[in-house]
Amino acid sequence: MDIVLLGSGNVATHLGGALVRAGHRIRQVYSRTAAPAQTLADAVGARATTDLATIDVQADVYIISVKDDVLAAVAAQLPPTLQGIVVHTAGSVDMAVLDEHAADYGVLYPLQTFSKAKAVDFATVPIAVEASDEAASVRLEALAGSLSRRVFRCDSKQRISLHVAAVFACNFTNHFYGIAADILNRYDLDFDLIRPLVLETAQKVMEHQPKDVQTGPAVRNDLRTMEKHLELLEADPALARLYRLISERIG
Amino acid sequence: MDIVLLGSGNVATHLGGALVRAGHRIRQVYSRTAAPAQTLADAVGARATTDLATIDVQADVYIISVKDDVLAAVAAQLPPTLQGIVVHTAGSVDMAVLDEHAADYGVLYPLQTFSKAKAVDFATVPIAVEASDEAASVRLEALAGSLSRRVFRCDSKQRISLHVAAVFACNFTNHFYGIAADILNRYDLDFDLIRPLVLETAQKVMEHQPKDVQTGPAVRNDLRTMEKHLELLEADPALARLYRLISERIG
Repeated sequence: MDIVLLGSGNVATHLGGALVRAGHRIRQVYSRTAAPAQTLADAVGARATTDLATIDVQADVYIISVKDDVLAAVAAQLPPTLQGIVVHTAGSVDMAVLDEHAADYGVLYPLQTFSKAKAVDFATVPIAVEASDEAASVRLEALAGSLSRRVFRCDSKQRISLHVAAVFACNFTNHFYGIAADILNRYDLDFDLIRPLVLETAQKVMEHQPKDVQTGPAVRNDLRTMEKHLELLEADPALARLYRLISERIG
Repeated sequence: MDIVLLGSGNVATHLGGALVRAGHRIRQVYSRTAAPAQTLADAVGARATTDLATIDVQADVYIISVKDDVLAAVAAQLPPTLQGIVVHTAGSVDMAVLDEHAADYGVLYPLQTFSKAKAVDFATVPIAVEASDEAASVRLEALAGSLSRRVFRCDSKQRISLHVAAVFACNFTNHFYGIAADILNRYDLDFDLIRPLVLETAQKVMEHQPKDVQTGPAVRNDLRTMEKHLELLEADPALARLYRLISERIG
């Protein structure tokens, strides 16, 4: 398909690369500022633009991958004559935000954490698809299916629940890795020592439900160990409270 | 080395298997009850016993891998004539608990999460070693080094900090996987949809420090998205509070 990419952040960059590798053509990359637009455009063999009035009206799909709070504004400035499907890629923005700005619209939400530093195998990334009508849905599923083996339909309400679940399973989890790193640091130990544990913990739930493999003092109701841990944490009362709160949830 | 294993839980079982594969001989397996003692003894080619008075006094190392609260009691009942090094494998128990019960003693703490269901490659498991004197330390490091590439010395205080860090990076993290599963469940979505995200989140910190790869609405200070998430969570006020608390820590 012929695609216009609006945005130049992590999602747009990873998505752009995956689209090109899947054989699609990226006609244009839009970004508010010239440098990032040009960088991504060069990477995907497209033209760069910083002016929404010059967006090519002949593309099949327009993918808006910008910050949530400017998403509607970008959609509003698209040329009214364009024929393709306009989609966004946000987890927590209702599809309806595009309703006034396009005839055919939808959402492609790739459920993964993207960072500039690390390549992602898009084939394994689940992509949630939602569309304004059945024809657009079929088109978007075909596009998503060319990138990933795991494409599924989900409405805006379900998509927010996916995003909230992702915050717990990814963002909050990473914060806990950071807490672990801080604790080790304080005792002259390296985060590297618990890297195998971090990986094993994730790998365990690849085949099991998290509840079935819960371990640790809280689930064993091992009060003595928890007391020792709270003693060690008492220098940081907020952290001790967090330890107690989560242990109570588990126990 | 000739080893006596005291305990038949997850750690004893995984450790026993790794010891045999590394070429050590397990002379005896002790457990309070006969069936688990026999099962593990059969698996590692040892004799089973449920009577601490019958423990072989000729072994090189006695590994006590029982619940923390019975650890001292098991150590106290060992025959006073034994010559080997007595160690425990607990993260949060001071080495001093063995002081009255053995001439040479120490700790071998494998920093990993063990479950019956899943094999663990011991070669990658960091093992923390502590001992009552330098000679015992060298012997225990040799034993640990025959199992794992990652052996390091650490005192009892550092070891508790490792255990606390492990609770955050493993047990609490798994609880968050469980929260994610519950949220998805409520919206007729499968936990399988976020498994790639869980794995990627762990893999990301294999090469980076957690703080450098923090993503999500909290670190972006994306208040609008956080408000939407709290709206979805409001049916479960405790969970909404937890979301707010961790977001504030990240932000």
